[in-house]
Amino acid sequence: MIIDILNWRYATKKMNKETVPSDTVDRIIEAARLAPTSSGLQPFEVIVVTNQELKDRIRAISWNQSVVSDCSHLLVFAAWDNYTADRINAAFDLVNEIRGFKNEGFEAYRQMLINLYTPRDPQVNFEHAARQAYIGFATSIVAAAEEKVDCTPMEGFEVDALDEILELRKMGLRSVLMLPLGYRDEEGDWNVNLVKVRRAKEDFVRWFK
Amino acid sequence: MIIDILNWRYATKKMNKETVPSDTVDRIIEAARLAPTSSGLQPFEVIVVTNQELKDRIRAISWNQSVVSDCSHLLVFAAWDNYTADRINAAFDLVNEIRGFKNEGFEAYRQMLINLYTPRDPQVNFEHAARQAYIGFATSIVAAAEEKVDCTPMEGFEVDALDEILELRKMGLRSVLMLPLGYRDEEGDWNVNLVKVRRAKEDFVRWFK
Repeated sequence: MIIDILNWRYATKKMNKETVPSDTVDRIIEAARLAPTSSGLQPFEVIVVTNQELKDRIRAISWNQSVVSDCSHLLVFAAWDNYTADRINAAFDLVNEIRGFKNEGFEAYRQMLINLYTPRDPQVNFEHAARQAYIGFATSIVAAAEEKVDCTPMEGFEVDALDEILELRKMGLRSVLMLPLGYRDEEGDWNVNLVKVRRAKEDFVRWFK
Repeated sequence: MIIDILNWRYATKKMNKETVPSDTVDRIIEAARLAPTSSGLQPFEVIVVTNQELKDRIRAISWNQSVVSDCSHLLVFAAWDNYTADRINAAFDLVNEIRGFKNEGFEAYRQMLINLYTPRDPQVNFEHAARQAYIGFATSIVAAAEEKVDCTPMEGFEVDALDEILELRKMGLRSVLMLPLGYRDEEGDWNVNLVKVRRAKEDFVRWFK
């Protein structure tokens, strides 16, 4: 059950440097690839960093958090810097190609999106794309926990510095989130045995019956 | 496997008006409550609308999408309109209360967050809170699919109008996402048999080895 999976996971603060098998990593990334996104555009990519020198450099711009360098695979969720007609067309063309037919309503929707998104401030479009990245981020967190792989959901890093280290801007991307994957170091992790705290149900849910 | 669950689900476009059992709905909401969020603040709530008149009114400001009125439970993910010292303190106090001890580093972190967040433009804080809502939204989507409950991830509605209908602003909330829950109407849903389309792995993942 996903509820058991969510209860099992925690924000790992110390990794033991063991390597996660590559087929397991593939499934964790696949969960992000299958995640639903607005209009199916999937306006983000997953960057996988295993290069130790790069991980060390990224740690230095991530409040020196050890999981960044000690993790097995460092996933970076990077969103499109903007919506362009090319990007929207590529997504819609792919749908037509895979489904093998064209549909009038779908083509009208394509045009509506191009007309709506492309004149907007790139920052507005990036913010919208970044939100979609959170959906894939969440499905990857669940997928990792299902595989008994630990991870550390992270917003705490210098986004501009990370964009520079990985040269993301050249790819039309901007970093949003990091997800170091690995295995907990039970001895060294102050967070491993702390009780998970969540607001009570009655303070989290409201009903309109 | 979460991958099978994600492959099973699709954006349902027509619901059959059957009611989802309340314990099932509880588990779908519980998945959002257990979702990780930035600094553990959980800066959003889940609003559950089952009142038919309200659902009909919300449909009218949601491009008249039938799932909004035909669903069993309409979940609205609403984020905090701002970060305040009260809200941050409540979250940190809850941690101390549940864990039964105080910790110097944690108290310093509390103060750092208050100093960082509370002077910021409320819009910046809302945007950050809204991003967290997407994580809970995603875990609820997975939880629904695990229960073989259909849903429709929706950004397409008039947020200000929804805030007014549910009087969210008075509660210090702003609507971000909707998730109608129910069961597909196989006959009436044009989307039910369409192949799921996602960008190929090689266009979605980049490696730095």
